[in-house]
Amino acid sequence: MVNLRMAYEFKATRQVQFSETDMAGLMHFSNFFRFMETAEHGFYRSLGFSVANHSKHPRLGWPRVHAACDYKKPLHFEDMVEIHLLVVEKRTKAVRYQFRFRKLNEEPVVEVARGEMIIVCVQHFPDGTMASAAIPPEIAEKIQIAPPELLNVKF
Amino acid sequence: MVNLRMAYEFKATRQVQFSETDMAGLMHFSNFFRFMETAEHGFYRSLGFSVANHSKHPRLGWPRVHAACDYKKPLHFEDMVEIHLLVVEKRTKAVRYQFRFRKLNEEPVVEVARGEMIIVCVQHFPDGTMASAAIPPEIAEKIQIAPPELLNVKF
Amino acid sequence: MVNLRMAYEFKATRQVQFSETDMAGLMHFSNFFRFMETAEHGFYRSLGFSVANHSKHPRLGWPRVHAACDYKKPLHFEDMVEIHLLVVEKRTKAVRYQFRFRKLNEEPVVEVARGEMIIVCVQHFPDGTMASAAIPPEIAEKIQIAPPELLNVKF
Amino acid sequence: MVNLRMAYEFKATRQVQFSETDMAGLMHFSNFFRFMETAEHGFYRSLGFSVANHSKHPRLGWPRVHAACDYKKPLHFEDMVEIHLLVVEKRTKAVRYQFRFRKLNEEPVVEVARGEMIIVCVQHFPDGTMASAAIPPEIAEKIQIAPPELLNVKF
Repeated sequence: MVNLRMAYEFKATRQVQFSETDMAGLMHFSNFFRFMETAEHGFYRSLGFSVANHSKHPRLGWPRVHAACDYKKPLHFEDMVEIHLLVVEKRTKAVRYQFRFRKLNEEPVVEVARGEMIIVCVQHFPDGTMASAAIPPEIAEKIQIAPPELLNVKF
Repeated sequence: MVNLRMAYEFKATRQVQFSETDMAGLMHFSNFFRFMETAEHGFYRSLGFSVANHSKHPRLGWPRVHAACDYKKPLHFEDMVEIHLLVVEKRTKAVRYQFRFRKLNEEPVVEVARGEMIIVCVQHFPDGTMASAAIPPEIAEKIQIAPPELLNVKF
Repeated sequence: MVNLRMAYEFKATRQVQFSETDMAGLMHFSNFFRFMETAEHGFYRSLGFSVANHSKHPRLGWPRVHAACDYKKPLHFEDMVEIHLLVVEKRTKAVRYQFRFRKLNEEPVVEVARGEMIIVCVQHFPDGTMASAAIPPEIAEKIQIAPPELLNVKF
Repeated sequence: MVNLRMAYEFKATRQVQFSETDMAGLMHFSNFFRFMETAEHGFYRSLGFSVANHSKHPRLGWPRVHAACDYKKPLHFEDMVEIHLLVVEKRTKAVRYQFRFRKLNEEPVVEVARGEMIIVCVQHFPDGTMASAAIPPEIAEKIQIAPPELLNVKF
């Protein structure tokens, strides 16, 4: 098939902003989760779709049911951070991602934190409720599982 | 009519959280605007309505067209902050608020910052656009202008 | 000794702010971590100390090495949220907390999310580096482990 | 002199993140101030210095005494935003900046918001207090005022 873009990983880069630091002088730990989401949404765009403008499925949402992060080294203001998303698992209604944070502005480049998120596909109903739903096939078929040799890198 | 609650002011209190500080050790200046909004929404609730659940007008929104803040003294982690909202001006489609920030955990209690916001009432259309709209009368009639002697306190 | 306040739990309450929601209409998942920290710092204050003003140990810090959250139901604007901190484990240099989120403004009150954090005590050095350190005894001796019957409540 | 980089403007670009939107579906108004700061710090870096690592003046800080924003059109998730900083005024201890927000992902590119900040140079003292201070000459001499024809563009 022509033109079918499949992927199991994505790399986003963000620079730590002053407003993302806290009085300990480090990036606040909650912001690692926002960085993960940046990589997640960039991954979706790389597949050709956006969580915001899915014309065929206007009422789909992608909430998280699980999010976690292990922190080894801190990030500071102006650090250039690579967020490396890897697809760990794909189910009918859910995807599990791993995120590896690397600080690019220091040699050697090392992994400073590792995160994980499980997102589920849901349908929002007009009354404000939502229910889990199968990931639309045109999206699901583009999401691949990362190869084991990539996933098996210890943190 | 009984039961008509009118008001021209509201006081909210928030404690500065660790995640609201930055590496300078102070509350980040952008968070003063979030504190203003806390007082604004508390003011609306004190009048008996919520920007989120307006059953009679489900598609109304309250964006800001202007926001400003003058900073005299910084706020720190764990400071108890009073945000004092005053209605400065009321127009058909807009309201101008003033906000006075006082640090309650230090004697004498002084005003550390003063903010201002102009909010407009808009109607959101299904296509994602919006247009300014008259503030619904049942809300507008409850909002009063603060008396001059209160407004004329210099910062 | 009189006056020794020991504790294994703490409850904080926060109301979801407009600025804490996202375009899905829900509280952004990263803010649950900020709510956890609010309960953690309230817990410390209940023991008589603050992470910010520890006069005897001015250079101590309390970074997280692990943070996680499981989400069952979303939170919305204006929800009143109880964050219930429980001490799960206490080590020489680290403490493991569990956090249970309950939405108070809806009957029956149910747990909507459950989080976990492991914090370590570190010493900040003048050159910007830090190293793990024993939790000062006057703090450590006040922190108790929650009883099993409390910890064993399934989510 | 060779190598002296002077400047009166700077352009930064940021993409609106999901976590920067609110339940109205728009970028939260407070985040425009964080975007301004991104441009401000990029401006400083373009001059060769950083607010975080000023080895010659380790205790200098750059708090804001005034911040304001006028909003004409909203920003949405995934919008590409140019923040155009212009130096409006330079005093011994303070600088006034203007910020023009343009949405780059839509033709024609228009200015959607305009902001302003006045920052002052302060010295932090060991006891936690601070006092205004002259901007160090090696920084001040690089900061130019933008030409009138640039500043006089109406919003």
